[in-house]
Amino acid sequence: MGTIDLKPGERLDDLQRNGYRIIQDPDKFCFGMDAVLLSGFASAPDGGRVLDLGTGTGIIPILMAAKTGAKELVGLEIQSESAEMANRSVILNDLEEKVKIVEGDIKEAGELFGAASFDVVTSNPPYMIGGHGLQNPDGPKAIARHEVLCDLEDVVKAAARCLKPGGKFYMVHRPFRLTEIMVVMNSYKLEPKRMRLVYPFIDKEPSMVLIEGARGGKSRITVEPPLIIYESQHKYTKEIYDIYGF
Amino acid sequence: MGTIDLKPGERLDDLQRNGYRIIQDPDKFCFGMDAVLLSGFASAPDGGRVLDLGTGTGIIPILMAAKTGAKELVGLEIQSESAEMANRSVILNDLEEKVKIVEGDIKEAGELFGAASFDVVTSNPPYMIGGHGLQNPDGPKAIARHEVLCDLEDVVKAAARCLKPGGKFYMVHRPFRLTEIMVVMNSYKLEPKRMRLVYPFIDKEPSMVLIEGARGGKSRITVEPPLIIYESQHKYTKEIYDIYGF
Repeated sequence: MGTIDLKPGERLDDLQRNGYRIIQDPDKFCFGMDAVLLSGFASAPDGGRVLDLGTGTGIIPILMAAKTGAKELVGLEIQSESAEMANRSVILNDLEEKVKIVEGDIKEAGELFGAASFDVVTSNPPYMIGGHGLQNPDGPKAIARHEVLCDLEDVVKAAARCLKPGGKFYMVHRPFRLTEIMVVMNSYKLEPKRMRLVYPFIDKEPSMVLIEGARGGKSRITVEPPLIIYESQHKYTKEIYDIYGF
Repeated sequence: MGTIDLKPGERLDDLQRNGYRIIQDPDKFCFGMDAVLLSGFASAPDGGRVLDLGTGTGIIPILMAAKTGAKELVGLEIQSESAEMANRSVILNDLEEKVKIVEGDIKEAGELFGAASFDVVTSNPPYMIGGHGLQNPDGPKAIARHEVLCDLEDVVKAAARCLKPGGKFYMVHRPFRLTEIMVVMNSYKLEPKRMRLVYPFIDKEPSMVLIEGARGGKSRITVEPPLIIYESQHKYTKEIYDIYGF
């Protein structure tokens, strides 16, 4: 284990994978179940290169370093405070050889990394349209949740640019934006190939959608069985426990 | 009840609604659960006009005559043998005042009925792309199941043309074509507003997608709770029994 310092307000959480831990600050940057489910939904080829757009705490590259044979995982993050914290989590887990945290803008990913340079791109982007009515639109939570600094099209465009032909894009988003997701992915030739809806309970509306696209893929999508989160109040289904690694 | 003649091979089925019955010929035209679920998913305003594109046996307008307050329901069918049979089902149920079966091509629906003339358009179109490898591409089953005489874009285009602004489009289709459905609906400004996936069992891939679009609607879709068909082998869930009216 690398040695790092925790700042005031930060805490360490166990990821239940390879003994990995992650730094979070509940007032600023925390990951949600979304990121964990995306890491479970995504895969990467052995020796492959993975780019995570808007990496936040670094949760997705760190979890994918644990569960895939990817050679290099790059997390791009625009907020320097968050990038610095994610970098300390990388050091803490002795992952400096494999996981790189880069501070920068999703809209410049193509220039930063070069076109067609990754096998896989992942993203857990801001879900909410615009930043209207936000009390604190420059705050780290607003930037992570609302499309203040980048929108869906920016993310898809960057992914399409950075992926090799046939490369895979994995994203988690909110179901209410499904049409837009499909239209935008299709327009950037990042064809949706696999989708899974995440339902909190079997009789409720889904709260998340997991989607896989292939750069240059043909139009045909596999919709997977529903992923149900809770078996009963406070009790996860077996599949959720498996994804979390408990 | 009107008086009609059954032809050789035809049978009468009870629809469990208003005492309505329908004529089917298992060798030629039969409706599936798809049409019944679409009728349950769709609605129509009191006094409204409804158009069903590719009506087959006439099942959708007949069921919607039973369950909505629509004033007029038109079923458009290109196969004369099927249109004639559907028309006998209309007479059988004394629905001639309300339900009209029209023989004609979906691609000419705009000219046949006039633009912006319906409040609701429904369709259970052919699901399969093209007619390659079909033994009998001119047969009634091939025409109902494969895109031999019309394709998805023809259906969406006709619906967009025939609907009043704000009018609703209801379609059942196969999930593997979901991206195409959303892209084509969006391009004809028939914005997807509501979607429900139909899963045979809770742990299986969905076999159908029910989708509602609004002509000129804004981009925001509600994905509804999963519709599960079977509770156990041979036993429908309560929701399916309710839709069938048993």
